[in-house]
Amino acid sequence: MPKRVGILTGGGDAPGLNAVIRAAALTATRVYGWEMMGVLEGFDGLYHGLPLIPLTEQNVRELLARGGTVLGAANRGSPFAHPVPLPDGTIRYDDVSHVAISRMKDMGLDALIVAGGDGTMAIAQKLVEMGARIVGVPKTIDNDLSLTDVTFGFETAINTATEALDRLQTTAESHHRVMVLEVMGRDAGWIALHAGVAGAADAILIPEIPFDIQIVCQKIQQIQLSGRHHSLIVVAEGAAPMGGKQSYTRRETGVRLGGMGHLVGELLAECAAAEVRVTVLGHVQRGGQPTPYDRWLATRFGSAVVHLVAQEKWGQMIALQGTRMVDVPMKAAMRLKRVDPAGETVRMARDLGIVFG
Amino acid sequence: MPKRVGILTGGGDAPGLNAVIRAAALTATRVYGWEMMGVLEGFDGLYHGLPLIPLTEQNVRELLARGGTVLGAANRGSPFAHPVPLPDGTIRYDDVSHVAISRMKDMGLDALIVAGGDGTMAIAQKLVEMGARIVGVPKTIDNDLSLTDVTFGFETAINTATEALDRLQTTAESHHRVMVLEVMGRDAGWIALHAGVAGAADAILIPEIPFDIQIVCQKIQQIQLSGRHHSLIVVAEGAAPMGGKQSYTRRETGVRLGGMGHLVGELLAECAAAEVRVTVLGHVQRGGQPTPYDRWLATRFGSAVVHLVAQEKWGQMIALQGTRMVDVPMKAAMRLKRVDPAGETVRMARDLGIVFG
Amino acid sequence: MPKRVGILTGGGDAPGLNAVIRAAALTATRVYGWEMMGVLEGFDGLYHGLPLIPLTEQNVRELLARGGTVLGAANRGSPFAHPVPLPDGTIRYDDVSHVAISRMKDMGLDALIVAGGDGTMAIAQKLVEMGARIVGVPKTIDNDLSLTDVTFGFETAINTATEALDRLQTTAESHHRVMVLEVMGRDAGWIALHAGVAGAADAILIPEIPFDIQIVCQKIQQIQLSGRHHSLIVVAEGAAPMGGKQSYTRRETGVRLGGMGHLVGELLAECAAAEVRVTVLGHVQRGGQPTPYDRWLATRFGSAVVHLVAQEKWGQMIALQGTRMVDVPMKAAMRLKRVDPAGETVRMARDLGIVFG
Amino acid sequence: MPKRVGILTGGGDAPGLNAVIRAAALTATRVYGWEMMGVLEGFDGLYHGLPLIPLTEQNVRELLARGGTVLGAANRGSPFAHPVPLPDGTIRYDDVSHVAISRMKDMGLDALIVAGGDGTMAIAQKLVEMGARIVGVPKTIDNDLSLTDVTFGFETAINTATEALDRLQTTAESHHRVMVLEVMGRDAGWIALHAGVAGAADAILIPEIPFDIQIVCQKIQQIQLSGRHHSLIVVAEGAAPMGGKQSYTRRETGVRLGGMGHLVGELLAECAAAEVRVTVLGHVQRGGQPTPYDRWLATRFGSAVVHLVAQEKWGQMIALQGTRMVDVPMKAAMRLKRVDPAGETVRMARDLGIVFG
Repeated sequence: MPKRVGILTGGGDAPGLNAVIRAAALTATRVYGWEMMGVLEGFDGLYHGLPLIPLTEQNVRELLARGGTVLGAANRGSPFAHPVPLPDGTIRYDDVSHVAISRMKDMGLDALIVAGGDGTMAIAQKLVEMGARIVGVPKTIDNDLSLTDVTFGFETAINTATEALDRLQTTAESHHRVMVLEVMGRDAGWIALHAGVAGAADAILIPEIPFDIQIVCQKIQQIQLSGRHHSLIVVAEGAAPMGGKQSYTRRETGVRLGGMGHLVGELLAECAAAEVRVTVLGHVQRGGQPTPYDRWLATRFGSAVVHLVAQEKWGQMIALQGTRMVDVPMKAAMRLKRVDPAGETVRMARDLGIVFG
Repeated sequence: MPKRVGILTGGGDAPGLNAVIRAAALTATRVYGWEMMGVLEGFDGLYHGLPLIPLTEQNVRELLARGGTVLGAANRGSPFAHPVPLPDGTIRYDDVSHVAISRMKDMGLDALIVAGGDGTMAIAQKLVEMGARIVGVPKTIDNDLSLTDVTFGFETAINTATEALDRLQTTAESHHRVMVLEVMGRDAGWIALHAGVAGAADAILIPEIPFDIQIVCQKIQQIQLSGRHHSLIVVAEGAAPMGGKQSYTRRETGVRLGGMGHLVGELLAECAAAEVRVTVLGHVQRGGQPTPYDRWLATRFGSAVVHLVAQEKWGQMIALQGTRMVDVPMKAAMRLKRVDPAGETVRMARDLGIVFG
Repeated sequence: MPKRVGILTGGGDAPGLNAVIRAAALTATRVYGWEMMGVLEGFDGLYHGLPLIPLTEQNVRELLARGGTVLGAANRGSPFAHPVPLPDGTIRYDDVSHVAISRMKDMGLDALIVAGGDGTMAIAQKLVEMGARIVGVPKTIDNDLSLTDVTFGFETAINTATEALDRLQTTAESHHRVMVLEVMGRDAGWIALHAGVAGAADAILIPEIPFDIQIVCQKIQQIQLSGRHHSLIVVAEGAAPMGGKQSYTRRETGVRLGGMGHLVGELLAECAAAEVRVTVLGHVQRGGQPTPYDRWLATRFGSAVVHLVAQEKWGQMIALQGTRMVDVPMKAAMRLKRVDPAGETVRMARDLGIVFG
Repeated sequence: MPKRVGILTGGGDAPGLNAVIRAAALTATRVYGWEMMGVLEGFDGLYHGLPLIPLTEQNVRELLARGGTVLGAANRGSPFAHPVPLPDGTIRYDDVSHVAISRMKDMGLDALIVAGGDGTMAIAQKLVEMGARIVGVPKTIDNDLSLTDVTFGFETAINTATEALDRLQTTAESHHRVMVLEVMGRDAGWIALHAGVAGAADAILIPEIPFDIQIVCQKIQQIQLSGRHHSLIVVAEGAAPMGGKQSYTRRETGVRLGGMGHLVGELLAECAAAEVRVTVLGHVQRGGQPTPYDRWLATRFGSAVVHLVAQEKWGQMIALQGTRMVDVPMKAAMRLKRVDPAGETVRMARDLGIVFG
């Protein structure tokens, strides 16, 4: 009797998700003869019993280089806190996890592959504890999951951010400007660190190292004294000044008006008496075709996770360590991996002359 | 006796300026045997008598694909309104145009090539009327100068904006979002129009067509009804709502907090009840290596303008009309070229289903 | 009664063909309320009565940025010389043009849009003379059709070729080598000329200017004397030496072993006593996503040609002249447009120091 | 007394070499206060006592994203077999290693950093055994050095190869063709393997797995039966058929006429009765700006190797293992790292349906 395995993508999208789906489908079909079915809209789609999408060889043929996820991704849907709007306009959050699990049975899914970040892994882990047969694929564009050296999508984001720095460099130079680039990274500064080093930034501000704007100003002034009249500052969206004043982002509601990049820009305009321009890359970093490396890595993850299913390693997540695919407990993987302020790469960046505020 | 010709770049930079400088230097040196000298920092550098840079074949060798301008560009320096800080903190604006002209003589410059936009051309034209021997190269990343079909840098900017749209498309689709992209174009919507068509935008808001946000909202809702749950909106920075409320950009001082893109984002979040994300590309559009087409066009301009010098066509500017290099009076060229709301390309875009508000 | 219009693509593919199909379908559907139907495999598909593909708004949604042609392209199928294999192994060529025309009627096609090069236009023109209702869209990656300033796909090819030159430049420099790049262009040297100028080539060999290898050698030696130890040579596949010896490409059958690029490489290795490396880009130039400009131009062509159908301008082809869409007789357009050896752009390239052999 | 350290690059160039030079110079200068000097043209430059290039902060400022190596690279110069042309036209190879070592002393170089591949490391190792103070940076675009997970330049090459596959895909599809792409990899198939997986190849032929062309033909025919009429074959230049017939490359002298890609193309044209086109990427893969990842990795190598000098770890080479910089003996590192035919990644590729002949 053919095995039937589902796959869903949860949380924000990352370039490479479709390559995971394709590789999982090809491997499951060709190697094990299983049926691979796509679950739409993350755990929400499971709960609501949305129709499954058959992921045949034919159906996944054009997915390798395609950005986003064809399965869609519900950003906040957790079966442990399912939002139910009440008549009085408030929202109640119900635990519908048992429904999600019984849906898997109803749909004939013998197992489920879940590609997601820490939030999605936390949900999956709890479902596994309730008896669900789930394995995981790490997904975070910020590269902030533990136990895997790197995640797909991270490199694509770095390429987009570095290309922006390359472009800002030339116009900064022509006009003697300070250019501030805000990149993604709410809790971890990996994108800022890697793009900043690859794009020759002068300062890199990350959540892990609270910054003193005076140090950035001194760096800018010292650069000017050396005869160079422009500089590049990379700011992770989650960076924060020492001891202090949080971004005024949170004061705004709805559409974000100004994030940490704008705050840093204003502070520098004051203290460095320089012309400052700010660019906020935003969702551009999340989108587009995955780079060849991200296609390669996502393909490895997608293919390897199918073997975890075959080995019934429920609760395990596939990971890259060195050059090898390994599997690790979801529980351990979902811990936040942050840049070590005293680690080798930050020290290296400092050695090159980059300040972290 | 060897002729000695200067070249300066004025106003904002545009990818291709260095290719102009290189082609002018090679042509002047190789064809006419002249000396080509670079004037630093635009008209300011002329006035202040900054040392000239000899643009020998050796010196310009690596300039073809380099973004920005190696000569630097003073953004606001006009010899007809030169800022002089006074002891009481105020600024006086002096007419120092006669100094600029006599500097040309002092420096032994027989003629001057000026690459710039409408502001720079206006200055050059006035200097020509005072007897200066100047010819022009059109430079505007916005493509808003009259009498030339296209200017270099424009295509590079469109590529950057279209690539951003391509990236936003995939993440918008995965998350059912409305993505707003603010692009350059204060007075003319060429970049928004071209990138919007090339990047499959659903709405394009440009300065030439005051928009009604309700029409954009209806478009978004109609798209949702058709089963597509995401949409892309391109907004030129100079777009403005009908009859009205200007952007709140101008209320801010110093670093721009939110431009027209953010305003449109907020309005859409309200009226379309959709999740909206806004990206402001900013100076990223100005920078970076010119595309091959922009290198080709800039090289043609730079080479052709040297022949204008040889023909002593003072007050003329080089231009592209069809496939040919022609020369046109600076005076006529500096008129703003705007998108025709009733023209062929806007009609075409509407035919494809794009709304302009 | 709804009008029903077919569209087919003939000859080699070019980036932008799918954008033409999409724009034609959207315009026909939205503006005129017609049905647009795709004819598979060029005129062959018409003759064989292959099933038509309905090009609804939904079906063309993802075509804008997609390379190739979803309708397929038969390279050599002409209804005026249809190959019929005979029992003795030889092939007879029949005129089946009347069948092709009657198929149009059978399929209910009121008119046909044909996107193709000179060969395809010649066929279309003859069919029009027999009474068929056909309009044309110019398609040649080589940009060698008359009466249109430029065709889509050309810029994408130039970008690929120029990027290759950029890459070869750095490795040539590190190793003191002469790099030869063979690009497309059997009858016309437009790609070689534009990419060569944009990529800082030292010599450009094109079909329009028979080359003397000694002149290229002298150029290389002169460059070495100037202290630069590398050079870049661009060769159109159809370039040919003066007075003679044709490439040995034609001596080979089946897979091409060595084209003009290899011959030039061998000749230079001898006469310049330099280390030479040859790259043949081949079909890489034809493929991939169209650049934003090619998407824009193809969209204009695809939309404008639908209005030609509405105006019943049979035998006319859409074209770009300056910034405007115009229509021209197919008959006149299919004349080969070649680089003028005495024209402005070749002269400009020579002024920059580029030799043409 | 300031320490004075030299750096040289040997063998073929790789994108990232200049980033190594920059990072080493910045770290040596800023952290240790040493003088960093560039040795031109590899070991040849050392032997000939070419003038050293001071690598000050100012001088290395624009090197991060620049392809090639500004120090130049002598391809075959070994101080243990220095070519001396004799009067009778033959060449004698002298051991001049003692001269190279004494030159280091003469030039005041306290230590030498050598970036190179297996050949360069072998030379460096022997010099170390003679008492020279040398540390190494691994450099191979083919990623075929042992003990380091990856080398810079590898990813840039994969990106170029994968982009070519992406482009070939669309034109192959439109014309129902078999496309063969020859990529670098004389002894190891890493580039072919990674690009083939990332670019959705149907067959990957590598040196490590002698191929049976019949298996590739069967794969092509099976694809055709499935309704897809095009396929992509990636061939490493060093791939070889089982038991047999070597490429006819070696029969040619001077400029390579046809490599393994052309042979495979011819064999497939026969056995698969398909239209085949061959592209040989050649040196395009070596050139151009390094990707952001390669800049990052090269920067880590360049910075970390300076600490090896400080620790006087002569004979050691810097390497990446997992996410960490480690140092390994040059002797052990210069062993060829080949694709394991029975390893995880080849198995994965087979699971996806890719054949290796």
